[in-house]
Amino acid sequence: MATESDNWRLQFLSDNSVPVCPEAWAALEEANSNPDDAYAISYGNDRFTAEATRLIQELFETECEVFFVFNGTGANSLSLASICQSYHGILCHALAHPATTEANAPEFYTGGAKFLQVEGADGKIDPLALQVRLQRDHDIHLAKIKAVTVTQATEIGTVYTPQELGRLAALKDEYPQFDLKFHMDGARFANAMAALDGVTPKELTWQAGIDVLAFGGTKNGFSGTEAIVIFDKALGRDFAWRRKQAGQLASKMRYLAAPWIGMLKTGAWLTHARHANDHARMLARELTSFPEISLNHETQASAVFVHLPKAVSDGLRARGWRFHHYPKIDAWRFLCNWKSSKEGIAALIDDVRDLLGTANDHR
Amino acid sequence: MATESDNWRLQFLSDNSVPVCPEAWAALEEANSNPDDAYAISYGNDRFTAEATRLIQELFETECEVFFVFNGTGANSLSLASICQSYHGILCHALAHPATTEANAPEFYTGGAKFLQVEGADGKIDPLALQVRLQRDHDIHLAKIKAVTVTQATEIGTVYTPQELGRLAALKDEYPQFDLKFHMDGARFANAMAALDGVTPKELTWQAGIDVLAFGGTKNGFSGTEAIVIFDKALGRDFAWRRKQAGQLASKMRYLAAPWIGMLKTGAWLTHARHANDHARMLARELTSFPEISLNHETQASAVFVHLPKAVSDGLRARGWRFHHYPKIDAWRFLCNWKSSKEGIAALIDDVRDLLGTANDHR
Amino acid sequence: MATESDNWRLQFLSDNSVPVCPEAWAALEEANSNPDDAYAISYGNDRFTAEATRLIQELFETECEVFFVFNGTGANSLSLASICQSYHGILCHALAHPATTEANAPEFYTGGAKFLQVEGADGKIDPLALQVRLQRDHDIHLAKIKAVTVTQATEIGTVYTPQELGRLAALKDEYPQFDLKFHMDGARFANAMAALDGVTPKELTWQAGIDVLAFGGTKNGFSGTEAIVIFDKALGRDFAWRRKQAGQLASKMRYLAAPWIGMLKTGAWLTHARHANDHARMLARELTSFPEISLNHETQASAVFVHLPKAVSDGLRARGWRFHHYPKIDAWRFLCNWKSSKEGIAALIDDVRDLLGTANDHR
Amino acid sequence: MATESDNWRLQFLSDNSVPVCPEAWAALEEANSNPDDAYAISYGNDRFTAEATRLIQELFETECEVFFVFNGTGANSLSLASICQSYHGILCHALAHPATTEANAPEFYTGGAKFLQVEGADGKIDPLALQVRLQRDHDIHLAKIKAVTVTQATEIGTVYTPQELGRLAALKDEYPQFDLKFHMDGARFANAMAALDGVTPKELTWQAGIDVLAFGGTKNGFSGTEAIVIFDKALGRDFAWRRKQAGQLASKMRYLAAPWIGMLKTGAWLTHARHANDHARMLARELTSFPEISLNHETQASAVFVHLPKAVSDGLRARGWRFHHYPKIDAWRFLCNWKSSKEGIAALIDDVRDLLGTANDHR
Repeated sequence: MATESDNWRLQFLSDNSVPVCPEAWAALEEANSNPDDAYAISYGNDRFTAEATRLIQELFETECEVFFVFNGTGANSLSLASICQSYHGILCHALAHPATTEANAPEFYTGGAKFLQVEGADGKIDPLALQVRLQRDHDIHLAKIKAVTVTQATEIGTVYTPQELGRLAALKDEYPQFDLKFHMDGARFANAMAALDGVTPKELTWQAGIDVLAFGGTKNGFSGTEAIVIFDKALGRDFAWRRKQAGQLASKMRYLAAPWIGMLKTGAWLTHARHANDHARMLARELTSFPEISLNHETQASAVFVHLPKAVSDGLRARGWRFHHYPKIDAWRFLCNWKSSKEGIAALIDDVRDLLGTANDHR
Repeated sequence: MATESDNWRLQFLSDNSVPVCPEAWAALEEANSNPDDAYAISYGNDRFTAEATRLIQELFETECEVFFVFNGTGANSLSLASICQSYHGILCHALAHPATTEANAPEFYTGGAKFLQVEGADGKIDPLALQVRLQRDHDIHLAKIKAVTVTQATEIGTVYTPQELGRLAALKDEYPQFDLKFHMDGARFANAMAALDGVTPKELTWQAGIDVLAFGGTKNGFSGTEAIVIFDKALGRDFAWRRKQAGQLASKMRYLAAPWIGMLKTGAWLTHARHANDHARMLARELTSFPEISLNHETQASAVFVHLPKAVSDGLRARGWRFHHYPKIDAWRFLCNWKSSKEGIAALIDDVRDLLGTANDHR
Repeated sequence: MATESDNWRLQFLSDNSVPVCPEAWAALEEANSNPDDAYAISYGNDRFTAEATRLIQELFETECEVFFVFNGTGANSLSLASICQSYHGILCHALAHPATTEANAPEFYTGGAKFLQVEGADGKIDPLALQVRLQRDHDIHLAKIKAVTVTQATEIGTVYTPQELGRLAALKDEYPQFDLKFHMDGARFANAMAALDGVTPKELTWQAGIDVLAFGGTKNGFSGTEAIVIFDKALGRDFAWRRKQAGQLASKMRYLAAPWIGMLKTGAWLTHARHANDHARMLARELTSFPEISLNHETQASAVFVHLPKAVSDGLRARGWRFHHYPKIDAWRFLCNWKSSKEGIAALIDDVRDLLGTANDHR
Repeated sequence: MATESDNWRLQFLSDNSVPVCPEAWAALEEANSNPDDAYAISYGNDRFTAEATRLIQELFETECEVFFVFNGTGANSLSLASICQSYHGILCHALAHPATTEANAPEFYTGGAKFLQVEGADGKIDPLALQVRLQRDHDIHLAKIKAVTVTQATEIGTVYTPQELGRLAALKDEYPQFDLKFHMDGARFANAMAALDGVTPKELTWQAGIDVLAFGGTKNGFSGTEAIVIFDKALGRDFAWRRKQAGQLASKMRYLAAPWIGMLKTGAWLTHARHANDHARMLARELTSFPEISLNHETQASAVFVHLPKAVSDGLRARGWRFHHYPKIDAWRFLCNWKSSKEGIAALIDDVRDLLGTANDHR
C-alpha cells in the first residue's frame, strides 16, 4: 500500500480517489450552516431537493423525473430494475461495468435479469451485432430481451455520438415485440458532454432514444451522489417506493441535493469534466511522445489507455504510482479528474522518462 | 408546508431534520482538505475507514466486523439478510420500524422473509409471547422462524435493559432447532446508551445475546451513515460482497467513515445523545405541567409521546410547529436531538399555554 | 401416523388426500397410450395444451390467456407477481391462505411484496374496510398498495357472490391512483361455482372485476395442476417467460393439460364440486343434529366448520379420524370431496354419537 | 408443425416427447387405485414418499436427504439456491444448460447469482481452466465464487468419469477460502450411469465430491419428477421450507414419489437408460456409415451429434422428422430414449439414404 508521502501519486488511479471539489463543498456547507435553513424536512421534502430537481429538468429541457441516490451501483441497478422483470435480458457491451464489476447488483435488484453481451469496437455496442440478437433470440428458454444499456463515456473512455446512440435506439421501433428500453450508465456523462462540443444534454439522451439516465456526480467531484433521470414516464411509476425500499432514499436528503445545486448553477459540472478531458489528452500526448509507449485507442474523455513496457509499469508502481490494469484489453488506465494538473502530469512523465532511460541503458 | 420563517419550528419533528453536528462536520472537513491526504483509495481501502473500524471495535471491546453503510434502511435490511433466507420468519414487536415503515425493504433484501408480530408492553417484545411463537409455529406452510429483531431505543422512545435483552436471547438456547439470531435496530442506540447509566456497549449488545447491530449515526448528528456491527462471525461471511451488491458500498468511503472518528474520539456520540435525552425529559416535565396534557408512557430516551387536546395539536400545527401523530398508540411525538435547547422548549410551551388559555376562555 | 386400516378415516382431512377422479385419470391414460399420439412436443407445444386452453377460453367466454402450472402455490404466486413489484402491498383477508400458509411464496415470487390484512365477516373482505385502507395508506414508507386478493370459495368455505366481488372491484375506479388489480385464489373455484346456482364463470370472474384467476384443479380431483387464467392482457405480457423461470413450465405438458380436457368436456369439474358441496351440507346437518355440536358459520361449499366438545374431537382422533383445527376461529374443519359418500358420513356420525353417549354417561 | 401422421417422426427430438414408460405408469396406477391406500396424507407425509426416499438412500448408500420436485428447472435452481447467496458466482461450462436455457431460473431462485463460464473440451469443465478462475477472481466488485455445476451426462451427451469429477472437486480443498460446493445437473444421470460400466452411484456423486445432485426422472421415462439428493447435510438445512416456498412441493406427492418406487425397484431406471444409450450408438454407427455424415464428437450416452449435408437436414425436416440444431457447436442432435427402436432408426436411415442418393444424382 502507498505510504503517506505517496498520497499524490494516487492522482491517476481513480476519479473516486479525489476530494470533493470547491463548488460542491461550498454547497454542502451552505446547506448545513445557513441559520434560516437549520432544519430540513427529511426524505426529500426539502427545498434543496426541489431546486436541484428543477435545475436538472432545465438542463435536459424536459419534464423528466429525478431521483437522487447514493452511488452508481444504486443508480444503474434501480434504473434497470424499473425496466426489467426477473426473466428479462439486458443487452450490453462486453466491457459494460454494470455487467462485469457490480457484484451482481443489477441481477439482485431485478431479481434475476441476465446480461447478454453484444460486440462492438471501442467499447461501444455495434448496431448490427445488436440487431442479430433481436432477430435471433426469441426462445422461451432464453432470457426475454428487454433492455439495452450503454455507458457514456464508456468504460474505456470513448464517447457515443448522438448519431451512434440514435442508430441503436432505432431498433426499438424495428423490433416492437420486445418493447425495448434504453438505459445509459452516465457515471461520466459530464465527460461525454465535455467531449462533444455543441451537443446539448437532451440531444445526448432522450432525443437519442435514452429512456433513463444514471447521471453521475461522484466521479465529477461530488462527495457521493448520482441522479436517476427518467425520461420515459412509465418507468417512473411508483419509483419513489422502489428507491425507498432499496435503501437509496436519504433521510437527510439535502446533503445529496445541495451539491447538485452548486455544481449546476456554477457550471462546474461541465468545467471540471472539460478540465479532466483536457488533461487526459495532454497526458496522452506526453506519454505517446515516447516511442516505446502507444495508446490502445483514442483518448476521447478523461481516461488514457496505454501499453507500457514492463519496466515502466513495474517501475512506476515501485515508485508509488497507482493505476489500473485492464486485462480484457491488456492496457493500463490513467484517469484524470477535476484536480489534475500540469505538475502532476510532468511528475509522472519525468518518472516514465527516467525509467525508459534506465531500461535503454540496460540494453 | 412550513414557511421559511417557520424553519425553527421543525425542531421537534425528527432527528433527521437537524443539521450535521460540529464534531462530525469538522471530521468531514478534515477528511476533505488535509493536503497530506488529498487522495484516498476508494471503496473503503482508506485510512479513515480503517481507523473508524478500529474505534468501533474498541468501543464494543471485541473483534467485531464493521461495515459502514448509507442509512438505516440499508443497515437493518442487510443485517437481516445476513441472517435470513427468503423462507424465514423474523419475530418483531408490532411497532417495529423495519416491519412497518421501510416499504418492504427487509422483505426485498432477504428475498421474501416475513415479519411475525409478537406482543409486549412499552414497545418491547414480551419474553413469554416470544416463547409462545417458538413453541407453536413449526409447520412447513409457515415461515420458518429464524430471526428476532429488537429496536433500541424503541420506536416509542423506551429502552431495553441488558437484563430484558438477555431474557429474550436466552430463548436461543431453549429452542436450538431454530438456530435463532438476534438483530438490534440501533438507529438510536446512542440514546439507549445515554439512558442506561453505567451500562457498557458490550453489555447492551453481544453480552446480551445480540448477533448483529445496526449502529445509528444519522439521527445522532452525522450527515448520513450507519455502521453494521457484526458480533457473530458466521454472519459476516462474504458480507463485503453483500454490501457491494446492495449498493451500500461508498466509493468515497472516507466521507462515511470520518464522522465516526470525529464522534467517537470526542465522545460526542454519547454527549449529544445525553443532551437529546435530557431535553426530552425536560420537555415531558413542562408539557405534563398542564393538567390537560398527559404522557402516553415514560420518556426514557429522546422521544416524548403525549396526548394533546385537539385545540392544542391543531393550534400548534397552525402556528407552524411540526410533529408526528402515531395512530397505533394515538399519541403525538416530540423528538429532541443534539441541537435541542431550553429556548426551543420554552417557545413551544409558550404556544401550548397560549392555546390552552384560549381554549379554556372559549368554554 | 394413521395405520393402514385407518386409511379411509382420512377422508375428511383434505381434498388433497383424495385419489385422482375417473374422468381425469382416463384423460391421463388416453394422453399416454394413444399410439397416434405417442410423441408430444414438449413445453406446451402439444395438441392437449392447445385444446385445454381453448376449452377454458370457452368456459369463460373470453380470449383470456391460460397457463397450466403444477400447483396452487405456483398459480397464486405467479399471478400476484404479474401484478406486483417488490415494493407493493397486497390487500387480503386475515384468513387469506396465500398470506398465511404458503411459507412466504408470494413474497418470494414478487421479490418482497407485503400482505396487508383487511377485516371482514365470514372470511370475506369487507368493502368499507378495504376503502379505509385505500384512503389512508399513501405514505412512501409503507408498501404501495397494488393488488387485492380474494379466495373463492374462501378458506372457511364461504362464497363471494358476483355482487360482493363487484362491490370490492368498484374501488379500482374510485382510487385510480393505485392502478389496483384483483387476483382470485380459486383453488376451490369449482366449489364456488357449484354453490352459486345460475351464475356463469364469467359473471364470477372478469365481469366482476377479477383480473387474474388461479383456477384450481388439484382439489377438484386432478392429479395436480392449476390453470392461471389471465383476463387483463397487460398482466399476460411475457408471462410465458415468468412461468418458465419459476420452474412451473412442465416439459411433458400433456400430463397437466389432458386432465383439463377430460374434466371440462365431461362437466365432471362441476359435478364433482356439487357432489362435494352436497355432502358437506349433509354432514353439517348430521353434525348439528347433536345439540352439543354447533356450526361456526354456514356451510356454503365443501367445508364444514364446527365446534366440538373436547371428548368428541379427542375421541375421533383416537379412533383414527383426521381433520384440522383452525386456531384463528377455534373451530374444526371437515372437508368433503368428489369421493365423499353417505357411508363415510354415517361412519363418522356413528363415532360422534358413540363418543357423545359415552361422554354423557360419564357426567 | 408436424402433422398427426408424422407423430412417430418426433422420436429423435427430445426425451421429453416420449410417453411415460410402463414401469412408471404401473406405479402411478397402483398409487391411485389401491383401495387400501385410497387416501394419502398430503405434502409428502405419505408412505410412497417415504419408500421412494429410502430407495434413493439405498441406491446412493448414504443418509442423503431427498426432495422430490416437479422438474429440472426446479431441481437445479433450488439446489443452487441452497448453495448460493445473491452475490455469489457459479462456475460452469459454456454449454451448461442451467446457465443458458433456463430463462434465468437459477438467477431468480438465488436472487441474483451469476454464472461464470469455464472452458473445456467435450462439454466438460477443464480442471486447469477452473483453477485459473479460483486463482484470479477475488475482487469485491466481482461475483464471489461459491458453486461449481457440472452436467452429467453433459448437454452434448458426453460423460464425466469419477476421476474427472474428482480432479475438479479436489480444488475445493486447494482453495478453501471459497467454501466451494459442487452441484450436478443429473437430468440424464441414468444415462451417465449406464455409460460407465462398473461405476456405482456413490462413486459418481458424493465420493467424487458432489454435494447436491438433481437426479432426473422426467427424461428417463417418468411423467415428470426429479429428485434433489443432498449429500452435504448443511445444504439441507430448512430445505423443506425452500421447496415449499418455491412452489415445488406437491400436495398430492404420491404421484411424484410412486414412479420412483416403480423405476428403482424394477431397475427400469437403468435398463431404459442403457436402452437409450445402445440405440444412440447404433444410430451413430448407421449415420456415419455414410461418408457425407460425421460425428461432432463421440456418442457416450443417449445423444448423437452429427454434421449433416444441408440436403439431408432440410430433406429430413421436409419429411416431418424433428431434431434440434445446436448453434454453439454447429451440429444436429438426435436423441434416443427408452422407446427407441431398431425400426425407428431404420426408417430414419432409409430417409437419409434416399436424400443422399437424390442429392448425389443431382450433382
